[in-house]
Amino acid sequence: MFQAPLLDGIPQDIAAVADYAAYARRRLDDNAWAYLEGAAGDELTRGWNRAAFDRRTLLPRVMADVAGGHCRTTLLGRELPLPVLLAPVAWQKLFHPDGELATAYTASALGAGMVLSTLASCSIEDVAAAAQQGGNGPRWFQLYLQPERQLNEELVRRAEAAGYEAIVFTVDAPLNGIRNREQRVGFQLPAGIEAVNLRRPLDPNDRAGFELRQRSLAEKRKQRGPSNVFDDLMCHAPTWKDLEWLLATTRLPVVVKGVLHPDDAVRAVDLGAASIVVSNHGGRTLDTLPASLDALPAIAERLFGRVPILLDGGIQRGSDIFKAIALGASAVLIGRPYIHALAAAGPFGIAHVLRLLQDELEATMALCGVDRLDRISTDFLKDPSFRRIDA
Amino acid sequence: MFQAPLLDGIPQDIAAVADYAAYARRRLDDNAWAYLEGAAGDELTRGWNRAAFDRRTLLPRVMADVAGGHCRTTLLGRELPLPVLLAPVAWQKLFHPDGELATAYTASALGAGMVLSTLASCSIEDVAAAAQQGGNGPRWFQLYLQPERQLNEELVRRAEAAGYEAIVFTVDAPLNGIRNREQRVGFQLPAGIEAVNLRRPLDPNDRAGFELRQRSLAEKRKQRGPSNVFDDLMCHAPTWKDLEWLLATTRLPVVVKGVLHPDDAVRAVDLGAASIVVSNHGGRTLDTLPASLDALPAIAERLFGRVPILLDGGIQRGSDIFKAIALGASAVLIGRPYIHALAAAGPFGIAHVLRLLQDELEATMALCGVDRLDRISTDFLKDPSFRRIDA
Amino acid sequence: MFQAPLLDGIPQDIAAVADYAAYARRRLDDNAWAYLEGAAGDELTRGWNRAAFDRRTLLPRVMADVAGGHCRTTLLGRELPLPVLLAPVAWQKLFHPDGELATAYTASALGAGMVLSTLASCSIEDVAAAAQQGGNGPRWFQLYLQPERQLNEELVRRAEAAGYEAIVFTVDAPLNGIRNREQRVGFQLPAGIEAVNLRRPLDPNDRAGFELRQRSLAEKRKQRGPSNVFDDLMCHAPTWKDLEWLLATTRLPVVVKGVLHPDDAVRAVDLGAASIVVSNHGGRTLDTLPASLDALPAIAERLFGRVPILLDGGIQRGSDIFKAIALGASAVLIGRPYIHALAAAGPFGIAHVLRLLQDELEATMALCGVDRLDRISTDFLKDPSFRRIDA
Amino acid sequence: MFQAPLLDGIPQDIAAVADYAAYARRRLDDNAWAYLEGAAGDELTRGWNRAAFDRRTLLPRVMADVAGGHCRTTLLGRELPLPVLLAPVAWQKLFHPDGELATAYTASALGAGMVLSTLASCSIEDVAAAAQQGGNGPRWFQLYLQPERQLNEELVRRAEAAGYEAIVFTVDAPLNGIRNREQRVGFQLPAGIEAVNLRRPLDPNDRAGFELRQRSLAEKRKQRGPSNVFDDLMCHAPTWKDLEWLLATTRLPVVVKGVLHPDDAVRAVDLGAASIVVSNHGGRTLDTLPASLDALPAIAERLFGRVPILLDGGIQRGSDIFKAIALGASAVLIGRPYIHALAAAGPFGIAHVLRLLQDELEATMALCGVDRLDRISTDFLKDPSFRRIDA
Repeated sequence: MFQAPLLDGIPQDIAAVADYAAYARRRLDDNAWAYLEGAAGDELTRGWNRAAFDRRTLLPRVMADVAGGHCRTTLLGRELPLPVLLAPVAWQKLFHPDGELATAYTASALGAGMVLSTLASCSIEDVAAAAQQGGNGPRWFQLYLQPERQLNEELVRRAEAAGYEAIVFTVDAPLNGIRNREQRVGFQLPAGIEAVNLRRPLDPNDRAGFELRQRSLAEKRKQRGPSNVFDDLMCHAPTWKDLEWLLATTRLPVVVKGVLHPDDAVRAVDLGAASIVVSNHGGRTLDTLPASLDALPAIAERLFGRVPILLDGGIQRGSDIFKAIALGASAVLIGRPYIHALAAAGPFGIAHVLRLLQDELEATMALCGVDRLDRISTDFLKDPSFRRIDA
Repeated sequence: MFQAPLLDGIPQDIAAVADYAAYARRRLDDNAWAYLEGAAGDELTRGWNRAAFDRRTLLPRVMADVAGGHCRTTLLGRELPLPVLLAPVAWQKLFHPDGELATAYTASALGAGMVLSTLASCSIEDVAAAAQQGGNGPRWFQLYLQPERQLNEELVRRAEAAGYEAIVFTVDAPLNGIRNREQRVGFQLPAGIEAVNLRRPLDPNDRAGFELRQRSLAEKRKQRGPSNVFDDLMCHAPTWKDLEWLLATTRLPVVVKGVLHPDDAVRAVDLGAASIVVSNHGGRTLDTLPASLDALPAIAERLFGRVPILLDGGIQRGSDIFKAIALGASAVLIGRPYIHALAAAGPFGIAHVLRLLQDELEATMALCGVDRLDRISTDFLKDPSFRRIDA
Repeated sequence: MFQAPLLDGIPQDIAAVADYAAYARRRLDDNAWAYLEGAAGDELTRGWNRAAFDRRTLLPRVMADVAGGHCRTTLLGRELPLPVLLAPVAWQKLFHPDGELATAYTASALGAGMVLSTLASCSIEDVAAAAQQGGNGPRWFQLYLQPERQLNEELVRRAEAAGYEAIVFTVDAPLNGIRNREQRVGFQLPAGIEAVNLRRPLDPNDRAGFELRQRSLAEKRKQRGPSNVFDDLMCHAPTWKDLEWLLATTRLPVVVKGVLHPDDAVRAVDLGAASIVVSNHGGRTLDTLPASLDALPAIAERLFGRVPILLDGGIQRGSDIFKAIALGASAVLIGRPYIHALAAAGPFGIAHVLRLLQDELEATMALCGVDRLDRISTDFLKDPSFRRIDA
Repeated sequence: MFQAPLLDGIPQDIAAVADYAAYARRRLDDNAWAYLEGAAGDELTRGWNRAAFDRRTLLPRVMADVAGGHCRTTLLGRELPLPVLLAPVAWQKLFHPDGELATAYTASALGAGMVLSTLASCSIEDVAAAAQQGGNGPRWFQLYLQPERQLNEELVRRAEAAGYEAIVFTVDAPLNGIRNREQRVGFQLPAGIEAVNLRRPLDPNDRAGFELRQRSLAEKRKQRGPSNVFDDLMCHAPTWKDLEWLLATTRLPVVVKGVLHPDDAVRAVDLGAASIVVSNHGGRTLDTLPASLDALPAIAERLFGRVPILLDGGIQRGSDIFKAIALGASAVLIGRPYIHALAAAGPFGIAHVLRLLQDELEATMALCGVDRLDRISTDFLKDPSFRRIDA
């Protein structure tokens, strides 16, 4: 019988990735839980992300010879044991005392990719060290464009210096969305947890200059118009010019994260983006955005293989990964699922989640008669009843 | 992080317009609640109004430059800070001791439009005064055609004299519908609350004439046929002739409220209506009418920009307003949401609701890459999966 | 405000026909309730009957002049005050001590049509007398074909003699279906309640002949094959030949009840049926039959006005009647709703139900701008969003 | 009234096959229940199997003459009293002390077909003897391909020798799927229950050779790659070559079980398969496979009557059998339903289930006006509303 080996200390009733959520809930306070689980508005998009996987049926093939199959893939020049990366999640010390260090160590130990958030609670350099200690997994750095524009270049340079292999430029969250669940509990960072990589003045020797710029920002706000959104928050939002600047600034491949419209995907690739993440930010920015899986096919059709496409939002099963790949993705990112495991069981939990996903993905491939990821196609998603004899 | 500034006394867990409902429920008795919340029959249409917004997905654009954006609009010659009006709601003293005065003051203070009901519990003139005290927001007067036909002209003249800027002629409620929820609690107006603008004889010096006409009505009822509906209530229902009369009688623009059929919309505009409100009366007249949002596109297509189209029914989010505009509306009216806020928090509540809607609408615009209302179109509602590769 | 006048003793919280069910439940024991409420199998069809009405939207017209409107109709030569008949329901003494006498009296008093079941617990003649005492409403007799074929003619002759104006020939229940709810409670008729019209030997003077025929039937059963259904129950099922016999035997118009297939409807009318009842027997014979309303349009299209079409199944609202007429019916039958009212409030309840339906139907007509039943058409059911701009 | 005769000891509230589940739950411990009821992953496919029947509507014909009708059929040369076989279910001693012996005896007594699982808890020979003692029902043997390839031939020879009439080759479960429910309770076989037909060394005189082969397998596992699935479990999965071997090895007809793709069905028949079972293994191998009924029409269309098609998954009603036949099946298999009955009421329960299905199937046929299985067609599944006048 197919059965993932249980890691030390993993309870028997955690048989699937989603089983970690209940355990995580018990470990976390309302503040951290609201931040982790909350999404924008009425959280419809978050539910749709999941439903988009559930409603798609698999059409399997039997008796295929799949000896020697595997789910390895190559992404931006690096081989991964399975097509899964850990998505950028801010302030991971909210969920485990070791925060991003635990995540980086474990991901690297299993050869999986990890994307470090700009809002990490551990320093870019410490996380890199933990990853190197863990193994050889690739690490990427996620960039939120900062109001202090000079800070962006500093962040990129630090990531380059610390051996990060790609910059993930998040473009779909110029403002944090209407996270009603967070607002209702009055979410705030506990003492001792902060976005440490944004803490220092840009130039430690130029404190005067830093304070001058801060004052200038504050004054701009005072002069702003009546709109909270347009006259304040959106002033610092990334534009296509910022993407051009980033592409010209770094020698690393740039992954544009948060695209749902095919025209935006094409434009980003035309400018030089090395990859696209089809994403609605886990449903956290704007409610009633479509499920990311639903947005994937049209983007894949337009990009036509020019760059690898990534996807996040709702992945909980190996069969979900199979479906995302069938619809055009090269790999997926998971967010809340690994944080649940981190909160519930620490590094062992993350390793277990990755193992479960690999076993489930391989089982899906085997039962569909597929031995390599690049043989997965929409042929395996056809609805056998679409020619309804009975209608 | 995007966060609406909390007004004094607004609890932290009111983060969205819909959060006011639970607070309002606690403040109101069963009688007022049944009147406010109840709708016709099994209240299906009321639910559909909401669902029509929830099921439509937004397709956003990223990295657009939206600096200086805003959600101002011009309606019947007046600029509004946001495309929202407060719908006519009867007997507002049921919900707050100051009734319509509180509503008018707050709406005007925020520059928002307010529509006063024929069945207001405060006088046309007092409400006008409160609005002027509050600020410069536009005020409109809603007219239910009265059995005493002479009374209609009097109401229009009083509205004109008090500076109301439009007459909203409600045509979809010639009878009050089958409000089973109201009937089950035996709804009745408490002592001291009534439709004060209908109280007086038409001519205070002609009490004899008034009583004569009342007797004549009573006799007509005695002679009526066996139909409660056709032989009694519908005798006083508005017809197209009444609309013609109204258009000829007043110098104010006439807005026809309660249209769902494109042919009716066209006919009203052909006759001279300045605007149309696509509405099913909040689901209160006839159950299983379609959601007002579902009725909008066909009407917008037929009117083709000849007059501004308004819409009410189910609006609770800034993103709902965005969707209504994308499908052809120029502005929307909200009803129950502001009454919930009025009941729960008085004028502060109404101001908070308007601020929440503005912030959410602007956030939706910003995240969709739109800086002006007139750039919102159905392009932003396309379902990215409508070409189903996987089906 | 539109409000049906409450009859003496009707509680305030009965504002709609469906409100009677809870009251009836409290008056009836499990045995009677299972018989009344139960349907075949998993009772899906029963739910679909209702859902078919709920999901159809009304597209109303405003400002039409409907003065003098009404909902009267003519059916098989008789004028009815509203297009509603009381469907045949067996053993009504299960629900009220006066059984069918109460129903007949009340229906006739209101001018409404009543269809008496073959399985009535009161005699054909007594029910006729009660109806005459009540007023002038039409009465029809429903015929289940009896194994003792001679008995059928006797029943028809008695109905003719007692002034019944039509024979309703039920063809969709040759066996009683798989009424699992009844079976689970072990339904049985209480002492003193029986199908009195089937009780007597065919010829009281020929008891020997009767017993002979009974023995012959019993022997046939002993010789039957292994199928409960085909070798026993279906031996007495009505066939097209039986319909021909009935049409040749009686001078009364024959209404064929229980048709869902257009070909069957056409064949029955070709043979001489005066009317068709589109029905799935309230979901009581075979589960997953379509909702009767869903079966109506195709039958109406094929019959093209040759005979009036009736419909039962799921009617609870005046707007349901409007929809049935829009899709091709001339009138409807209600079953469980009037039995609920009979059980809860006796004759007053039935009268109240009929009044509620009339008021609701007229309100629906008025709000849709229709003054006569024959002006109701599918124009009023068009979904205004069927041309989806946003899809 | 149609009423199945109650067998001795069957409680009154078991009126339908599905009623046995609650009784079985009370008799079984969590371990056995998780094995029986659990399906793969989130168990969506298991629910869809059932829903696929529920959403299809029957379009009946009235007044047809169905005297002498029956539901007998011929399958692989054998007449069956009804088109139902008992699906292979492993370790039936988990559910009743007599295990497969009880099943075989009862099935044979009623002339129904039974398929014995490779993982039976009773020996091939003992089950054959029980079946012969019971009556004359056909028995088939289900083969899971064994890692020890020599064992397969032995199993086939034993089945042939014991009078089994077909080999059912299961091809959709090369690994056991992700049975999370089983994993969460830590399912394991109780002492004394095992797959007895796999217990013995291949050749009792060659224990040394057996142990050698076992060691060889163990060593292969040690040398395996990093994939639990591809490098271990799938090494022993059946391929098309194994099917060819089986067809060449046995003189019995080979039924290929677990096909959902039309191309696989055609290929199996081209190679010589005598029949196909359209199945998703009761939803137990891979979640989000389509309902087996939904997969049936396309396969039936492609096979075009070349071989009889069987179907399992979700059957609980006689009307389900009718629908499966309408969409192209010749007969169906039931699994959990008869195990529920076995657990709750032993052999009497299984007999009752078969009788209920026959009575319900015949009632469905009679009410649809069909007297023989081969007259069932998609004509009886047409949705009468598919030409929507109101849309």
